[in-house]
Amino acid sequence: MKPSSSPADYRPKNPLVSPRFGDVATFNRLPYLPDLKGKQVDVAILGVPFDGGTSYRPGARFAPRAVREASALNRNFHPTLGVQVYDQLNVVDGGDISVNPLNLQATFKNIEKRVREVHEAGARAILVGGDHSILLPELRAIHEKFGKPILVQFDAHTDTADGAWGEKYHHGTPVRRAIEEGLLSGSDIYQIGIRGPLTAADQEEYCREQKINILDIDAFYDLKKREQFFHLIHSKASKGGKGKRRPVYLTFDVDGVDPAYAPGTGTPVVGGMTSREALESVRKLRGLSICGANVVEISPPYDHAELTSLLGAALVFEFLSLMALE
Amino acid sequence: MKPSSSPADYRPKNPLVSPRFGDVATFNRLPYLPDLKGKQVDVAILGVPFDGGTSYRPGARFAPRAVREASALNRNFHPTLGVQVYDQLNVVDGGDISVNPLNLQATFKNIEKRVREVHEAGARAILVGGDHSILLPELRAIHEKFGKPILVQFDAHTDTADGAWGEKYHHGTPVRRAIEEGLLSGSDIYQIGIRGPLTAADQEEYCREQKINILDIDAFYDLKKREQFFHLIHSKASKGGKGKRRPVYLTFDVDGVDPAYAPGTGTPVVGGMTSREALESVRKLRGLSICGANVVEISPPYDHAELTSLLGAALVFEFLSLMALE
Amino acid sequence: MKPSSSPADYRPKNPLVSPRFGDVATFNRLPYLPDLKGKQVDVAILGVPFDGGTSYRPGARFAPRAVREASALNRNFHPTLGVQVYDQLNVVDGGDISVNPLNLQATFKNIEKRVREVHEAGARAILVGGDHSILLPELRAIHEKFGKPILVQFDAHTDTADGAWGEKYHHGTPVRRAIEEGLLSGSDIYQIGIRGPLTAADQEEYCREQKINILDIDAFYDLKKREQFFHLIHSKASKGGKGKRRPVYLTFDVDGVDPAYAPGTGTPVVGGMTSREALESVRKLRGLSICGANVVEISPPYDHAELTSLLGAALVFEFLSLMALE
Amino acid sequence: MKPSSSPADYRPKNPLVSPRFGDVATFNRLPYLPDLKGKQVDVAILGVPFDGGTSYRPGARFAPRAVREASALNRNFHPTLGVQVYDQLNVVDGGDISVNPLNLQATFKNIEKRVREVHEAGARAILVGGDHSILLPELRAIHEKFGKPILVQFDAHTDTADGAWGEKYHHGTPVRRAIEEGLLSGSDIYQIGIRGPLTAADQEEYCREQKINILDIDAFYDLKKREQFFHLIHSKASKGGKGKRRPVYLTFDVDGVDPAYAPGTGTPVVGGMTSREALESVRKLRGLSICGANVVEISPPYDHAELTSLLGAALVFEFLSLMALE
Amino acid sequence: MKPSSSPADYRPKNPLVSPRFGDVATFNRLPYLPDLKGKQVDVAILGVPFDGGTSYRPGARFAPRAVREASALNRNFHPTLGVQVYDQLNVVDGGDISVNPLNLQATFKNIEKRVREVHEAGARAILVGGDHSILLPELRAIHEKFGKPILVQFDAHTDTADGAWGEKYHHGTPVRRAIEEGLLSGSDIYQIGIRGPLTAADQEEYCREQKINILDIDAFYDLKKREQFFHLIHSKASKGGKGKRRPVYLTFDVDGVDPAYAPGTGTPVVGGMTSREALESVRKLRGLSICGANVVEISPPYDHAELTSLLGAALVFEFLSLMALE
Amino acid sequence: MKPSSSPADYRPKNPLVSPRFGDVATFNRLPYLPDLKGKQVDVAILGVPFDGGTSYRPGARFAPRAVREASALNRNFHPTLGVQVYDQLNVVDGGDISVNPLNLQATFKNIEKRVREVHEAGARAILVGGDHSILLPELRAIHEKFGKPILVQFDAHTDTADGAWGEKYHHGTPVRRAIEEGLLSGSDIYQIGIRGPLTAADQEEYCREQKINILDIDAFYDLKKREQFFHLIHSKASKGGKGKRRPVYLTFDVDGVDPAYAPGTGTPVVGGMTSREALESVRKLRGLSICGANVVEISPPYDHAELTSLLGAALVFEFLSLMALE
Repeated sequence: MKPSSSPADYRPKNPLVSPRFGDVATFNRLPYLPDLKGKQVDVAILGVPFDGGTSYRPGARFAPRAVREASALNRNFHPTLGVQVYDQLNVVDGGDISVNPLNLQATFKNIEKRVREVHEAGARAILVGGDHSILLPELRAIHEKFGKPILVQFDAHTDTADGAWGEKYHHGTPVRRAIEEGLLSGSDIYQIGIRGPLTAADQEEYCREQKINILDIDAFYDLKKREQFFHLIHSKASKGGKGKRRPVYLTFDVDGVDPAYAPGTGTPVVGGMTSREALESVRKLRGLSICGANVVEISPPYDHAELTSLLGAALVFEFLSLMALE
Repeated sequence: MKPSSSPADYRPKNPLVSPRFGDVATFNRLPYLPDLKGKQVDVAILGVPFDGGTSYRPGARFAPRAVREASALNRNFHPTLGVQVYDQLNVVDGGDISVNPLNLQATFKNIEKRVREVHEAGARAILVGGDHSILLPELRAIHEKFGKPILVQFDAHTDTADGAWGEKYHHGTPVRRAIEEGLLSGSDIYQIGIRGPLTAADQEEYCREQKINILDIDAFYDLKKREQFFHLIHSKASKGGKGKRRPVYLTFDVDGVDPAYAPGTGTPVVGGMTSREALESVRKLRGLSICGANVVEISPPYDHAELTSLLGAALVFEFLSLMALE
Repeated sequence: MKPSSSPADYRPKNPLVSPRFGDVATFNRLPYLPDLKGKQVDVAILGVPFDGGTSYRPGARFAPRAVREASALNRNFHPTLGVQVYDQLNVVDGGDISVNPLNLQATFKNIEKRVREVHEAGARAILVGGDHSILLPELRAIHEKFGKPILVQFDAHTDTADGAWGEKYHHGTPVRRAIEEGLLSGSDIYQIGIRGPLTAADQEEYCREQKINILDIDAFYDLKKREQFFHLIHSKASKGGKGKRRPVYLTFDVDGVDPAYAPGTGTPVVGGMTSREALESVRKLRGLSICGANVVEISPPYDHAELTSLLGAALVFEFLSLMALE
Repeated sequence: MKPSSSPADYRPKNPLVSPRFGDVATFNRLPYLPDLKGKQVDVAILGVPFDGGTSYRPGARFAPRAVREASALNRNFHPTLGVQVYDQLNVVDGGDISVNPLNLQATFKNIEKRVREVHEAGARAILVGGDHSILLPELRAIHEKFGKPILVQFDAHTDTADGAWGEKYHHGTPVRRAIEEGLLSGSDIYQIGIRGPLTAADQEEYCREQKINILDIDAFYDLKKREQFFHLIHSKASKGGKGKRRPVYLTFDVDGVDPAYAPGTGTPVVGGMTSREALESVRKLRGLSICGANVVEISPPYDHAELTSLLGAALVFEFLSLMALE
Repeated sequence: MKPSSSPADYRPKNPLVSPRFGDVATFNRLPYLPDLKGKQVDVAILGVPFDGGTSYRPGARFAPRAVREASALNRNFHPTLGVQVYDQLNVVDGGDISVNPLNLQATFKNIEKRVREVHEAGARAILVGGDHSILLPELRAIHEKFGKPILVQFDAHTDTADGAWGEKYHHGTPVRRAIEEGLLSGSDIYQIGIRGPLTAADQEEYCREQKINILDIDAFYDLKKREQFFHLIHSKASKGGKGKRRPVYLTFDVDGVDPAYAPGTGTPVVGGMTSREALESVRKLRGLSICGANVVEISPPYDHAELTSLLGAALVFEFLSLMALE
Repeated sequence: MKPSSSPADYRPKNPLVSPRFGDVATFNRLPYLPDLKGKQVDVAILGVPFDGGTSYRPGARFAPRAVREASALNRNFHPTLGVQVYDQLNVVDGGDISVNPLNLQATFKNIEKRVREVHEAGARAILVGGDHSILLPELRAIHEKFGKPILVQFDAHTDTADGAWGEKYHHGTPVRRAIEEGLLSGSDIYQIGIRGPLTAADQEEYCREQKINILDIDAFYDLKKREQFFHLIHSKASKGGKGKRRPVYLTFDVDGVDPAYAPGTGTPVVGGMTSREALESVRKLRGLSICGANVVEISPPYDHAELTSLLGAALVFEFLSLMALE
């Protein structure tokens, strides 16, 4: 995809020359390039240091920093998928989206605007949250550019609540709001890893009504159901009409994995999948047309030994690999 | 089970009105009701802040506090078991049992007495330990009320030691003492998750002699054996004679799960089951008549990001769900 | 002050009977009494689990919980001040003020309303924050009841910023807003422990213009200046006219002490006073008429071994002691 | 004191040859010599891994291990006191005293017996606790060998409580019990650093009645009073009659220093002295006849970066230096 | 193997007499015996406190200390393998190998020399690293004594890099160097758990060229492939000619397991196997002739609640059990 | 010093627009400018992620990263010194000096070369270590540019050892080596905060012979001696001949402060000064001609709540302020 004589060739610093723990930390040790205009960039990784939509443990505002550091251990070649990511894609660290820690709506506008700019520069965006509320403004920009995408969501929660404390917008509501705003169709949503007690039984009803596809954690561990579920996603994604594939948006809330693997998160739910199962599942999306992706809800103050940030960094590399393979 | 016009209706505070991190922390954000007399309560959750029976890392005295805090994330509806717990049961936080941190025997008397009071008030008790030594006085109260129960025990250790340093009563001996006191029959004991090296080979002999049923960790990962084992429990529990089910006591030592999932514990043993497998296994007891339950050996000073306390809180919710389903 | 045959006698649980680590954690192991109406209460300690006004590290929403736990080590008799606090005052844990983690203005209303209720019940309020933004609504309620108080503020920052990111209300602005709203006069403000670089030189000007009295950290370590400063406070407070003392509001931001003593805080500044110096300074307010007090900016996710929460709990006891001595 | 051609010459391993972080950790990297019989040893450092007398945070059972590790940074020459410790004294790691974690009385017997053995071998003992309850059995052995010593105690608490929960022996009572047993006279006790609220005012009375000398934290910071207090100790110690000095027992509870300097302890009290002030104060005992010493109440599970263990190790070196200077 | 009337009988201290947390910490509470000459020792466990070959997080120099402490929970009888280890083998803590933290080559010489001494004393060595660079000098000593062994390696990385920053010797290169030095044949190497992105695709080529046998993490979770792989090892090991088994060297880099199970390591890679799967896999080597073993890359500063050290200690016990079963 | 219409105007990002926790972390949120050629830069802050000269706890390789993050709280105006730093100086983040974690000599060459480049670009360098061994190559570059500087060193150790394990170059020897290489005169060295036991008494002799000026911690707390000492430094610095001041190099080892204030360090020594006293002391150098400065021995893996990194960041700001005031 990337011609060998690419005029702009953005690559991670070489760790055999400069040790991984050195220098200003950028995502994957990539060049920092906040202004994409006129640059030949395929993917911009952007931080969204915002946790103003959090209902329990805050701290996700420090996630972009932490993932940048953890991503120093990231490398270039994905042996399972067989792809040299940076031979295929020009990737940069686009810096952080400007947030207002006290104003969710102002932050949402900035997110939407910045993702649009990335799209206008001909690139796709991978966002490192931030809490899950940031999904909504991302989807607004995605919808504008790509139309209604298929949403593949790894999560412990469906994020279809109708609000709390009189607030419509927080990290438990983005999927419902996106449906209401016409950014998504319920039947295009594929949620993986959902588990845990609910506030009320009627929470399940909304998902049923909207025809949201859910592979809850019990179903996930039924390998047949797991296969079928990913098969369904592929089927749906290929129905773009005229042989075209539909765009897929991938959102990964780290509480989708078990807190043993992702202790640094805001609303942990015991009993989730492992990191390996998560990575393996993400790889099952190979061949889809990924129009954007994010990893959210990493809360560094609750992390230990960078477990959760390392997972976040690994997921970003998986997203890039999927994009490189299209 | 709970009539809709129940005169006393004990429910968790509504998180949509009052955030989960707010206010005095009680188990599951339930009303604090230390005096049950004359109250219509089905289950009282009681803390036992005692670690005076610990042989290695102490700290379990702080577990009731920590589980109260972690249980703020607990909810009401169990989607897998399909039960609205608080529609079925009146549940309260009964406070902590008064302990004497320097006197195991005095503490044992308080535990036995307090559990009896709960029984006299027509309720069942769920205890949040404390170290595993607290099982013995609980079983004394259980035996008085229910006769010999079936014991289902999740644990890395059989807790059938004969003592140490000249002491008969500590967290490694309650099962043996309970058998000796006639509170339990060995063949009614079902232990799950046992693993790890033993001090001596003859430790296995006692269990064999007593006909204790053990699903060690290797057998646990043989899914056929696992199924059979839970089938056996159900069979045994239904042999109450005259169509009656036998009472089942459920004790969960968090070292039954792997220390990656429960780092905050006193005598960790690597190589255990996951939290998910534990929850799933507890749910297999659905339909049994649970006369009481505890979760023990959570040691908050060694915990991280509340991993172990969150597991403890989730287990308490599973216990309640089983009780609500009878 | 409290007659020995007081009809309502609120006291901490006796630790010689019930160990300090036991039972539901309330402030100072006091009775939990959210509804003060018709109760003979002198002081209500209230939590404000709100960090929606934070500009850097969040987490103060968990401070009320953490201070409740740490306060288990609090006792009854203050040997330096020579006062048996609970012989003089009926004190209760009034629970937490209901907050909206996503809405600062709604939270401000709740704080103001709840403090008014305390005042209406004839009691004074001690608040355990929360970030420092909560000072403003408190002062609104204080002003209504007591008129313009003298403000004694321990802090690294003057909190007289004019806003950030277009927001007027956050934890760096409450003092300026309070002056603007006429709740305080600049010359009635006494700030202790101010230190550290400033965003711009003109930040000092506002304080000079408003005649705010500042004992910065260098002056604090000039013992003569320190004495004079507290003397000034006493002078000002006694100028209530007609022999009456003016009401004094005491606000303690834990970043006023050095981060070695209070690591668990949001915007730490190295080079502060020690805990001992802070306690000693608070005691210098002996004899003043304390109309209310708070301790703010404790962020438990960044704390270690409860250092900061223990300081918070100790400060609450100092506040009570001052109130008991009037 | 130690002849250069000493037949047994016990010295720390040379760090210039073997790095400090290497090998089995013994106190000060000294030889491990549990059996002193017939050995020419001046001082044996012994661990007492017992926290069965703790009323709040446990964990002191792990202190001997932690202090052994932290003491790897200890060195040989004390520049302030000007003494080459190991040129003067043969010092060994005598191992840990055998404890029974469930039985305080049995443990007390072991402690007393073991300290007697050290005395019988012609050596003095430095004990690394363990909680402060271990002081009592030590004093029994000290009393037998040396008669009533002068007790110099660094502590936040007087440890003169009369018990709790019906128990006479725990870490808050050893000084009272020692007086009652005739091991100490109240007027021979010198306590430094006492501070913090008390459970009741009458706690001060006992100390007054017993004529215990107390330099509380406020007095400690009055440098004149501090000088006088240490002068008093020296005066008292020289009154041994016939030109002989009286034996001095030195007990250091790490909660005597501020929790910022000693976070790893069981019952922290904010507002204490610094580590430097503590070390400097211990050095003021230079010239006294130290018959034994201990450092207690280090709780490693609550420590950070070995702060408290490093302090414990430094104190042991100060004790040795004092002994080497006699 | 060990006659009951063995003249030297080295066994762990009895925990029923002396609590596990007590006394100077040695591996498995075994006797410390640095000088093996003339002693009847079967296995010496040696620490190698060296992290001078680390490319990312250092800290492994503290691993021998940490594993000694964690091994206090180790016991004697392996119920799965059915072996009383210390009835079969005389095992001692041989202390740490002397390292030079600033000089890799000097350290390598010491390691090689010390392992030779163990061999000369008729014993085998189990090494507790230290980073993985220590494998090379071990293999030099192994090769001298046993010829080319079969290498079974648990690891996330193949450790076949050719160097970095101009350095040929670091923790990513020992396998390549060992092949180059003729200590190993590529086809005798069996690597388990390899995973994660690579710096470049050609890293895979070297392994293919050298015919290194790799069970990567995806293959590991294909149970058929896993069985086959271990079957292959057994086949290869039995081809010693003349009915003799070939010697097997076992090296376990703890980053072979998932960082949730081993957070305390230097170059973590998410998506690994669990501790249980690791232990189970090691046990599959039963019956092989283990000529030596190590566990490396434990970095205590990044560990939590001793998770990684406990795993290290458990692995050492597995190694001993395998050796006891030959 | 900096004209208002400066063509290149390097300033920190405005936190009132972009929150401090956002975006790629650079020192003081300054522009990242690794190539200084042709740029109008006054001071370049450079990281030196090297801990290959460490004798105890490693980890300083992660200090530049950690100080970059902590410096997000740094501001622009120094109220005590009364200077708007960035109005006076063009300051940039010059990135990290390329290190070889396995090769001290190669790293030394890179350091020396890079500092020379800074000098050649007309700027001064502030280095963020790294362990204290990096001082030597810095002094080589300093010496070349400025001749023999006066060295002001905050430290617990004199760093005048002659080596260990046969190595001449490590973090305990740079001052001795610099004297030997003629980069410094002993009588030009001013050490502050020295304390703690020594390996041997003769260590003091070397310093005496070399006429190194030492304000040990006891002298530091004698305020008269402290004044005199700084007066001496000023006297010496003004003796440049012909009215010129001599260049002063400032090196700050964070173990110069007490480990309560700087837990994250490699060879902590209890009993040091506070952060405030350290900052105040650095400010006493006002008016001197600072030719360069570093802060070393911050070890993030041992830090808590960024205490030590925050101190490091604050010190860098002090260094800049001193430079801005010349």
